[in-house]
Amino acid sequence: MKQSQNPLAALVLAMLFLSVSVFAQSVADDPLPSWNKGKTKSAIIDYVHDVTDTNSKNFIPIVDRIATFDNDGNLWSEQPAYFQLFFAIDRVKAMASDHPEWKKEQPFKAILEGDMDELIEQGEHGILKLIMATHAGVTSEEFESIVKDWLATARHPRFNRPYNELVYQPMLELLNYLRANDFKTFIVSGGGIEFMRPWVEEAYGIPRDQVVGSSGKTEFDYNNGDPVIRKLPELDFINDKGGKPVGIYRFIGRKPVFASGNSDGDLQMLQYAASNTYKSFMLYVHHTDSKREWAYDRESHIGRLDKGLDEAKKHGWTVIDMKKDWKVIYPFELEK
Amino acid sequence: MKQSQNPLAALVLAMLFLSVSVFAQSVADDPLPSWNKGKTKSAIIDYVHDVTDTNSKNFIPIVDRIATFDNDGNLWSEQPAYFQLFFAIDRVKAMASDHPEWKKEQPFKAILEGDMDELIEQGEHGILKLIMATHAGVTSEEFESIVKDWLATARHPRFNRPYNELVYQPMLELLNYLRANDFKTFIVSGGGIEFMRPWVEEAYGIPRDQVVGSSGKTEFDYNNGDPVIRKLPELDFINDKGGKPVGIYRFIGRKPVFASGNSDGDLQMLQYAASNTYKSFMLYVHHTDSKREWAYDRESHIGRLDKGLDEAKKHGWTVIDMKKDWKVIYPFELEK
Repeated sequence: MKQSQNPLAALVLAMLFLSVSVFAQSVADDPLPSWNKGKTKSAIIDYVHDVTDTNSKNFIPIVDRIATFDNDGNLWSEQPAYFQLFFAIDRVKAMASDHPEWKKEQPFKAILEGDMDELIEQGEHGILKLIMATHAGVTSEEFESIVKDWLATARHPRFNRPYNELVYQPMLELLNYLRANDFKTFIVSGGGIEFMRPWVEEAYGIPRDQVVGSSGKTEFDYNNGDPVIRKLPELDFINDKGGKPVGIYRFIGRKPVFASGNSDGDLQMLQYAASNTYKSFMLYVHHTDSKREWAYDRESHIGRLDKGLDEAKKHGWTVIDMKKDWKVIYPFELEK
Repeated sequence: MKQSQNPLAALVLAMLFLSVSVFAQSVADDPLPSWNKGKTKSAIIDYVHDVTDTNSKNFIPIVDRIATFDNDGNLWSEQPAYFQLFFAIDRVKAMASDHPEWKKEQPFKAILEGDMDELIEQGEHGILKLIMATHAGVTSEEFESIVKDWLATARHPRFNRPYNELVYQPMLELLNYLRANDFKTFIVSGGGIEFMRPWVEEAYGIPRDQVVGSSGKTEFDYNNGDPVIRKLPELDFINDKGGKPVGIYRFIGRKPVFASGNSDGDLQMLQYAASNTYKSFMLYVHHTDSKREWAYDRESHIGRLDKGLDEAKKHGWTVIDMKKDWKVIYPFELEK
């Protein structure tokens, strides 16, 4: 009452209201609420503003707004091992009673004896044998059920949660933000296409036909009028390193303007995007948070980021410092 | 004036106006104006009404409304030979001066001498050699320019028009009608993906990443910081017959509910769609119009439709009688 009669006090009050209202507005308008303020978040938002502004010299037509995202370590976690490897290990255990020979045959023996060191010792050949044995010999529909059942029952060893709860909340917001600005979002992963498709639509809002990944061969079987696709124990395509641009060309047919990865396996995809004649955005997730997630880079066996870090620095690509840039890692942290 | 005072006359007038207005309305509302009235058109419209009606037991959620279309002979003509073969032949002629050895080497010799019988005599092996020589050894961007230049300059021998003007007007309307009802439309063709992508977006409104087809292998070349995709002279995948469901599974990851083709090469795709647990629609284009287009089926070397016709009859699939069902064939007929 008294203050309102004082012009200065009225002005202060008005400014206070104004700034509160501007603050509230800015929170409501923040498309990336789980990202801390800073140069990473600004770089993303500035880029999107620039290339979607019809008055900007960097404007990109909607049809060319292709955004590609690696999956493991980029949209969800990949430690202490790729989640698809846990799936394969669980499959071996589930199938073991039908395969008594596995007790004496590597890499199955190592898995059944819980000897992870020996499994790693089996190397790439062992992993390939493991994938073939656990991802083939079934129809496409059977495999989809197996993946869904596994996701519903298996639990991550550290967080004791379904694996698909370990997606990154800030990246979900980024995907939504890009789509709200008419970017078409794709997964471009070294992981198996058929392992991803049963759950990525719900998890990331990315349709099945926008998933590019590694794959095994399949065949069509008319099956006496009940046609099925059978998964064969033969590798078709490895969507990693130089395979990523090859996969992008095959499945998408356009060079990305926005590419996001977290390892040297993504480097060629980022180089490919960087060569776009449109202004492009290259983004690396750097795993720097040993408490909330994991910290690893140049020396890691999983998701090694070594040459990519050098290239990012050299070319001025954006590197997410997970510890500093992300307010939360997983969606379940928001439930607290 | 007088009439309006006569209640009966007023009623007649009102009915007249009403029926005129209903007629005008029905023309404006016809989603398939280039299709003649009849059981084919009705079958399509009844199906779309049924599966998009939330009260129908046959309702299909939007995410599952996948529609797949063959290209050659289904969305555009394929006579007197596949248009991609004309492209390859024109490429041989354009490249011949750099390849003096072709004067003595089949199938190039036959092409350079204009001996089509001899070219056909060279069979599948000859065609494959021809495709490899004319579709590889360039970057993805160079190949795209070559295809676009060819479309801009080459003319169809019968119609003396660019090949991409020989798309089917009724099928363009069908694609639009399905998309207006939230179907996602895909091309699933035996033709080359990279031959189709430069023009199908504009021609059919189908995005590049919704094109499934045959393909050659490619490799990523960092190329000293100017990355390119190089097309290699090696076959990767033939998207025909049983390869069509395999390609659909690989690229789309969902079984179609609507599948359209015109030859026995599309039969497996239609069988695959027919096995959908949702109510599905299988459509064959039967080339019956020897005047406006071409008439061919069981005995044709191009686009043979033999077993497919029997299966369509057996299972009650819809068969388009081009001559009877289509008011016009090509968009340019509407300009008259």
